Amino acid sequence: MKNNKKITLPKGFKAAGVSAGIKRSGRPDLALIVSDIPCKAAALFTVNKIKAAHIKVSKKHLKKSRSIRALVINSGNANCFTGKSGIRIAENITQGVAKCNNLKKEQVLIASTGIIGRQLNLNKIKRALPLLTANLDSRKTFDAARAMMTTDRFAKIVTRKLKIKSKTVKLCGIAKGAGMISPNMATMLCCIMSDVSISQSALKKVLTQAVSNSFNCITVDGCMSTNDSVFILTNAGAENPLLDSPGKDFNKFSQALCSLCLELAKMIIEDAEGARKFIRIEVKGAPSYSQAKQVGLSIANSNLFKTAMFGENANIGRVVAAVGASQIEVKEEDLKINLSPLNKKKINLVVNLNKGKHKAVIYTSDLTPAYIKINAEYN
Amino acid sequence: MKNNKKITLPKGFKAAGVSAGIKRSGRPDLALIVSDIPCKAAALFTVNKIKAAHIKVSKKHLKKSRSIRALVINSGNANCFTGKSGIRIAENITQGVAKCNNLKKEQVLIASTGIIGRQLNLNKIKRALPLLTANLDSRKTFDAARAMMTTDRFAKIVTRKLKIKSKTVKLCGIAKGAGMISPNMATMLCCIMSDVSISQSALKKVLTQAVSNSFNCITVDGCMSTNDSVFILTNAGAENPLLDSPGKDFNKFSQALCSLCLELAKMIIEDAEGARKFIRIEVKGAPSYSQAKQVGLSIANSNLFKTAMFGENANIGRVVAAVGASQIEVKEEDLKINLSPLNKKKINLVVNLNKGKHKAVIYTSDLTPAYIKINAEYN
Repeated sequence: MKNNKKITLPKGFKAAGVSAGIKRSGRPDLALIVSDIPCKAAALFTVNKIKAAHIKVSKKHLKKSRSIRALVINSGNANCFTGKSGIRIAENITQGVAKCNNLKKEQVLIASTGIIGRQLNLNKIKRALPLLTANLDSRKTFDAARAMMTTDRFAKIVTRKLKIKSKTVKLCGIAKGAGMISPNMATMLCCIMSDVSISQSALKKVLTQAVSNSFNCITVDGCMSTNDSVFILTNAGAENPLLDSPGKDFNKFSQALCSLCLELAKMIIEDAEGARKFIRIEVKGAPSYSQAKQVGLSIANSNLFKTAMFGENANIGRVVAAVGASQIEVKEEDLKINLSPLNKKKINLVVNLNKGKHKAVIYTSDLTPAYIKINAEYN
Repeated sequence: MKNNKKITLPKGFKAAGVSAGIKRSGRPDLALIVSDIPCKAAALFTVNKIKAAHIKVSKKHLKKSRSIRALVINSGNANCFTGKSGIRIAENITQGVAKCNNLKKEQVLIASTGIIGRQLNLNKIKRALPLLTANLDSRKTFDAARAMMTTDRFAKIVTRKLKIKSKTVKLCGIAKGAGMISPNMATMLCCIMSDVSISQSALKKVLTQAVSNSFNCITVDGCMSTNDSVFILTNAGAENPLLDSPGKDFNKFSQALCSLCLELAKMIIEDAEGARKFIRIEVKGAPSYSQAKQVGLSIANSNLFKTAMFGENANIGRVVAAVGASQIEVKEEDLKINLSPLNKKKINLVVNLNKGKHKAVIYTSDLTPAYIKINAEYN
């Protein structure tokens, strides 16, 4: 799906992306998604105690309005740790988007990503809004995905299509990585659009489930962002019978959403800052799913494990140390570890705790000098 | 104190260090400390659920014997994840040391550091024990400290001297770093020798306190070791009145021990793998000491903060993100952050939460390409 520039959005959705001049490089930095039909929306945000201005504003709008119509996203500036003026600026941006698109301010959600602690230039964004609006098109998915990018090397777009009672339902998700990625709603920015007809409560439920098994199973550097946000907008344009409670069709949609999120999550790992390896860590034989996940994340966040993977150095001892550091009760004699050959880009590590029947799969990258270079210079 | 090769140990203690051939490089890898006078001993070990063989054996001997006489330390092999034969080998080494020094096996403690998951060569160690014993000398402190080293660039020795009721009491601590350093008894290997007269219960108490404020306030890479151990041996050779319960003299000794441990801890950070910067993080205005520490460690373990320090990049946003990621309740508007100039080796970061009166100081290093090089190749 990489760099596919002609992906049509689900029914009723349009997107655009332009350069507003927030990034000094002149690269695209402002994206807009609009639905012609009012949407039900749900979102999950970072659990970091310091939250970006867009989270406060989007939460307010999600509470006030049951007919969301747009999401505006800027990259190049996180609008975080920017105090009351940061919030005022975020509100002004939603106001500007509303004005250009004949909407109410509360119908517009907002997301930001980039450097923390600097005021966002409102004028630059306001000046770009008319062009951004004029560019809206049901096939400009790539433009929007590209304008969300920070250190990402490729735009991340994933689509799914399914039948619900003879109606075709479409999903399209766009996301950005690529550093400050850690589980615990470590989800970078992601927007999922669908023309499915689904109830508000069911929407929140399927989103939570999908995020738990995808974005919350990846880690690049164990660093929890202040801006992480996943949005889902659904406009019922597919005219399928309303999905409300668990059942065959409900599960079908839920599975499609899970698989879409997992594919986006894997793309983020594939594009992790400085990464040379794509590492799949399967922890099995655990007493529970959460314990399997805890062990997997402990390994995935170990700098020593990650540098060994970079060095193609089968240092199993570091896996052992990270398993024990997870604080899950485990016996040395029960532990079985299998590591695939390290001279490949894709590495598979299987850890069997031999303590139960549950398993979890975590994805991560290696830790490389390039990661350090990118992050020593990023400012 | 670096490279001071003529440090006399406290009364009754002797040390030695030789090359047993465990390290392929031929560098010293076997150290021995013996006290002519029986010792009270206490120890703290890693909380990693996977523990090295030496921890199991030392714990057993500490329980069995109230008159410890020796500690043998090898580097180059962690003797961890080595199953029952690992334990058998560790017991055999204490047996060998006992035989050479006319002791009981239970009077000998043991510690190992190095690569995890490989069997330790017992024969090489046994062959070296006679020479090691013959070399024992009250001034061979440096030899022992050097033989503990793994990736350390310098031997770490710290001494203290104090008067207790006209008697001179001496302390000497030796330690090794330099990677897989994280708090939570992330204390690498350390042995403290003293001729103080102190009760068993008081000894455990002062050691716990000293470690909490020193070794547990440093982090290099957030990776918890399987082998971390701090030992203290006291032989009452100074003939001071027994220290048993809190009071002026007790506190004086406790303070000397704390300051010795803190100096060793700072040496470990100074010598952290690949480090270019020595970073002091002071978190103040916290509701409690433990919350201040939690915030400090969250910053100190953030790869993004550490790479920014390496890049001399005053990216305050990453400090903000790490403060929030600590999960301590904090308000953006209360947070005050001060960072000293970054073009120096020593960096001072002060974070004021403005939420209370407690503070904690954490020490860490930057994350550099050299750290990755060392750990990509270490095997």
